[in-house]
Amino acid sequence: MTDIAMIAAAAARMAGHARITPLLESDTLNALAGRRVLVKAECLQRTGSFKFRGAWAALSMLPAGVGVIAFSSGNHAQGVALAARMQGRAAVIVMPSDAPAVKIANTKGYGAEVVLYDRKGEDRDAIGAQIATARGLVLVRPFDDPAVIAGQGTVGLEIAEQAAAAGVDTADVITCCGGGGLTSGIALALAARAPGLRVRPAEPAGFDDVAQSLRAGRIVAHAGKTTVCDAIMTAAPGVLTFPILQRLCGSGLVVTDDEALRAVALAFTHLRIVLEPGGAVALAAAVFRRDECAGDAVICTASGGNVDADLFADILHKFT
Amino acid sequence: MTDIAMIAAAAARMAGHARITPLLESDTLNALAGRRVLVKAECLQRTGSFKFRGAWAALSMLPAGVGVIAFSSGNHAQGVALAARMQGRAAVIVMPSDAPAVKIANTKGYGAEVVLYDRKGEDRDAIGAQIATARGLVLVRPFDDPAVIAGQGTVGLEIAEQAAAAGVDTADVITCCGGGGLTSGIALALAARAPGLRVRPAEPAGFDDVAQSLRAGRIVAHAGKTTVCDAIMTAAPGVLTFPILQRLCGSGLVVTDDEALRAVALAFTHLRIVLEPGGAVALAAAVFRRDECAGDAVICTASGGNVDADLFADILHKFT
Repeated sequence: MTDIAMIAAAAARMAGHARITPLLESDTLNALAGRRVLVKAECLQRTGSFKFRGAWAALSMLPAGVGVIAFSSGNHAQGVALAARMQGRAAVIVMPSDAPAVKIANTKGYGAEVVLYDRKGEDRDAIGAQIATARGLVLVRPFDDPAVIAGQGTVGLEIAEQAAAAGVDTADVITCCGGGGLTSGIALALAARAPGLRVRPAEPAGFDDVAQSLRAGRIVAHAGKTTVCDAIMTAAPGVLTFPILQRLCGSGLVVTDDEALRAVALAFTHLRIVLEPGGAVALAAAVFRRDECAGDAVICTASGGNVDADLFADILHKFT
Repeated sequence: MTDIAMIAAAAARMAGHARITPLLESDTLNALAGRRVLVKAECLQRTGSFKFRGAWAALSMLPAGVGVIAFSSGNHAQGVALAARMQGRAAVIVMPSDAPAVKIANTKGYGAEVVLYDRKGEDRDAIGAQIATARGLVLVRPFDDPAVIAGQGTVGLEIAEQAAAAGVDTADVITCCGGGGLTSGIALALAARAPGLRVRPAEPAGFDDVAQSLRAGRIVAHAGKTTVCDAIMTAAPGVLTFPILQRLCGSGLVVTDDEALRAVALAFTHLRIVLEPGGAVALAAAVFRRDECAGDAVICTASGGNVDADLFADILHKFT
C-alpha cells in the first residue's frame, strides 16, 4: 500500500520535472468567504493539472524504453503524454470523442498517439486491451494504482509545508475528487506530515459516489447522470483509494454544477487563475458549503485549468 | 538614488506581507514560441499586480498613523489601498471615472476612500493637492519615487533567483512598461544579482514613450493616443526612472493592442493565468517580436490581472 515513504520517494523522482505550485490566497476572496481560503493552484502544474505528478511517478518506475497506454477524458491523458515524451517513451492515449477539444489537442501536442472512441457505443477497455497486447504497452491507471497515488500525494507534502508557512496548522483540506487518487494521496501525506489538516473530498452532485460511499461504509457507484465537471465524472472510488479515504477523510462535500461554475468565476476575479469546472468544486465547497467546514481557515485544491475558451467565456457572462 | 541595498531592504520589509510569485513555464507555449518563455506571474501578487510591492515599500517608510493619497487608474490604487489598510493608515485614491469597474470596486473593497474625476474635464493634480493639504496626507507617486522603485525591484531579486534555478543565466527580461518604475527596479536588481539578464521595456503602440526616449537619448512624451492597455497608459518615463532605463536597459519593444489581446488569450490557454492587456504586453513581445530578442530563452513579466470579465470574454471569443 502507498505510504509516506513512497510519497517522499515520488517527490524525489519528480524534483526538477514537476513544479512546486503556489498556495494562493486573495484578500478579497477571504472577505467574501468570511475566513481564509488557501488555494493550492495545480492548474499551474505542468499540463495544467495535478495529473502530471501521478503520471511521472508511475512512468518513472518503469524500465527505460517501455511504452505506455492510458484511458482518459483529458487531464490524465495530458499528464501521461508529457511524462512519456520527457522520459523518451511511446504513449497511446484512448480518449472519448466528446472530451474537451483543448484536452485532445494538447495530448496530441505532447506527442502521444490519440485513439478516440465513442463513449456511448464502444467498449473503451476492449479497445485499450487490444492495443496494449498488440504493441506491448503498459497500462497507466488514472487513480487506482499505488505509484499514481504516491505521485498525487506530493501535492499533500507541499500543502503541509506551505500551510505551515502561512500559519495554518488546523484546517479542512477540500479536494476535487473523482476516483480518489489525489484525495487519498493528499490524505496519506497530511496524516504523516500535518495531522491537524483533515481531508474532505468535494464532488459535483450526481457524481457524489465518494460522499455516498463514505456514508455507506462501502463502495457505492453513482446513478449515471451528467455534469459539466468532466474531469471528475468517475463512477466510483477505487479499490485501493477507498480504504484510504475511509480511514483518513472527513465526510464528503457535494456542490451543484452551478456552484462549480460560480467558483470558476470567483477564481478568475479574485485569484487570477483559470480553472476548469471539475477543478473548481473544492473552491465551490469552501465558499458555498461554509457551514459544513469548521474553522478560521480552509485549504482547497484547484486541481486543473484545461477548459475550452467558449465555455469559460460563457461562465464569465453568466456568473460575474 | 535607488540601489541594490535599498531593494534588499524593501524585500526585508515586505517579507511575509507581499508574495513571492512563481516564474511559470508552459511546454505548449515554449513549442509555440520556439524557445523557452519564463513568465513572472505578478498577477498572482496581492491585489493582482506588482504595484502592491512598491506601495508597501513606500508606505512602510512613513511614520505610523500617517495617511496617504495616490492617483491611479487602478493597480497602484489597489496596491496603496491594501498596503494602507494592512499598516493601519487612511488612504484616499483619486481615480479616473472611466477606470475598469473591477479596479474601482476592489480599491473601495480594500477600505480606501475613492474620489473619481473626469479624465477629460478635471485637473487630477489640483484635486489631489487640495485633499492632501486639507487632510495632511502624503502623496505616494506611482513610479517616480526611490522607495517605489526599490519595492518594484524586489521582482528582479526573485527573477534572479528563479531564473538561476531554471537554468537560465543569459536572457532578455521583457517588462510591461508604463512610467518605468517596475522596469527600472528590475534593471537595478538584475545588474547587481544576475548581470547576464538584460531588461527590455515593452509598451503598446501609441504609448511607446520609453522606446522613443531610449532612442532619442532624452525624455520624449507620447502623442496622446489611446490603448486597451489602461495599466500602462503613461505619457513619459519619469525623471528618476529614465536615467536608470538609459543606463541599464536594451532597446524598447512595441506591440499592437491586438497583439496584447492575443497574449491575454495565450496566457489563458497555455499558462492558466488571467492577465489584463497591459499586463500581457511583455508576453506579446516575447511571442510576436521574436526576432528582436536573441537567445534560447526569454523572461517576461506578467504584471497584472485586473481585467473586467466582459472584456476578457470578448478576448477569448476573438482570439482563441
